[in-house]
Amino acid sequence: MEDPILAGLVGLRDAGPSRACDLVVSQLRELIVDGRLAPGSRLPPERELALRFQTSRATISQALRVLSALGLVDIHHGSGVYVSPQPDRLLRQSVELMLGFDRPSLIRLVEARGWMEVAAVARAAEVAGPADVAAIREAYEALAAERDSVERWLGHDVVFHRAILVATGNTFVVTLLSPVLELMVSARVVNYRRAGAPAWFGGADLEALVDLHRRIADAVGSGDATAARALGEEHQLRLIEHVADLDPAA
Amino acid sequence: MEDPILAGLVGLRDAGPSRACDLVVSQLRELIVDGRLAPGSRLPPERELALRFQTSRATISQALRVLSALGLVDIHHGSGVYVSPQPDRLLRQSVELMLGFDRPSLIRLVEARGWMEVAAVARAAEVAGPADVAAIREAYEALAAERDSVERWLGHDVVFHRAILVATGNTFVVTLLSPVLELMVSARVVNYRRAGAPAWFGGADLEALVDLHRRIADAVGSGDATAARALGEEHQLRLIEHVADLDPAA
Repeated sequence: MEDPILAGLVGLRDAGPSRACDLVVSQLRELIVDGRLAPGSRLPPERELALRFQTSRATISQALRVLSALGLVDIHHGSGVYVSPQPDRLLRQSVELMLGFDRPSLIRLVEARGWMEVAAVARAAEVAGPADVAAIREAYEALAAERDSVERWLGHDVVFHRAILVATGNTFVVTLLSPVLELMVSARVVNYRRAGAPAWFGGADLEALVDLHRRIADAVGSGDATAARALGEEHQLRLIEHVADLDPAA
Repeated sequence: MEDPILAGLVGLRDAGPSRACDLVVSQLRELIVDGRLAPGSRLPPERELALRFQTSRATISQALRVLSALGLVDIHHGSGVYVSPQPDRLLRQSVELMLGFDRPSLIRLVEARGWMEVAAVARAAEVAGPADVAAIREAYEALAAERDSVERWLGHDVVFHRAILVATGNTFVVTLLSPVLELMVSARVVNYRRAGAPAWFGGADLEALVDLHRRIADAVGSGDATAARALGEEHQLRLIEHVADLDPAA
């Protein structure tokens, strides 16, 4: 049975194995990105792909592994290879790699996060719908109720800030900043596990921080973009202070 | 001769080929990210790595190809595999993939670019040194002198805005936004090749746009962050108007 999508693939009879691998990756990548190979669909077995591409099974196997590393397919051993386009997986990986290479860049990352978040909270105030506001408030309630664990508090904090990003309607910023928010929490949690809960987690500092989040939620809920922007800037200042507790060598 | 770095690698005698590939990738990745395998250094031949990891050459070959896709090594056929950590290559790829999946997100990308750039131009005004200002002015002069080719004009525009990002000292934002600037230009150039030069490229509109860039350069040069931010916002409004000429289906 001839698959009309795969029938268009270009054979690689004359390409060396390495060049062939690149060409298999780029052809399958294009089919996935174009949506011609739909998410969830199963790729033909390696031996069939090898026949179609006129190359070896080893080359096909390498190409599938590269596509997996790029977040484009999932390899389920025993059952096959499935299309699973997750560009945010690759983005997360690339942000992680950058942090790995350049730990002091964490403060730069916090700065860039702030630049985007201040604009995002103002935009959220302009465009958030009732469901967005409800999600932000729900995350705020969880944050306000948490007094025992800094780890759980930071988890609620990520949900809160992510809900604001979602409310902007800008999926690119959500995809870009979600891993940044999570990675910053991981870095802080690692540090707190070693050094104990930070000074700000408790007493008046914590209450002020919780209240700041309430005021942000209120500003977004009431559509006050100017207040939201000012509160976003205040939040960014607090965040930069707290980053002092992030050990770049951690 | 025993290499002390590679001597620490964990053998994978009992792992299946696919699990073994993942483990080879993660061990070599860690050595590269940690800097224990320095940029430019050459990895041992596949057969030697296969012996060290107690796995097959095919598995090593797959792992090296994954590391290459992640921008961590360069495979030079005939001469070997070299450590070449380029996290920005991966970041660029992930931004490209996201745009491939979600073409209408181009407008979201422009929005996010603006959020970061407005903050960046204000920060550049605060912290730019003489060399930064000279680079911005040089890019401006090239932009102001170009009247013939919209492609070349957009090329100078990328250099100009990149110089402002560099002036902020935030390497993360430079790495993140450089591919965004370039991809936006490619998308526009493709469109202009098909549809001809855009209406804004010529006459009073072009002069006003060139003048806006001059005022941005002046504000950064004189350290006026407030003016720089306002001009950044004006630039963002122009950019969003111009994005109307970006066909999302292109």
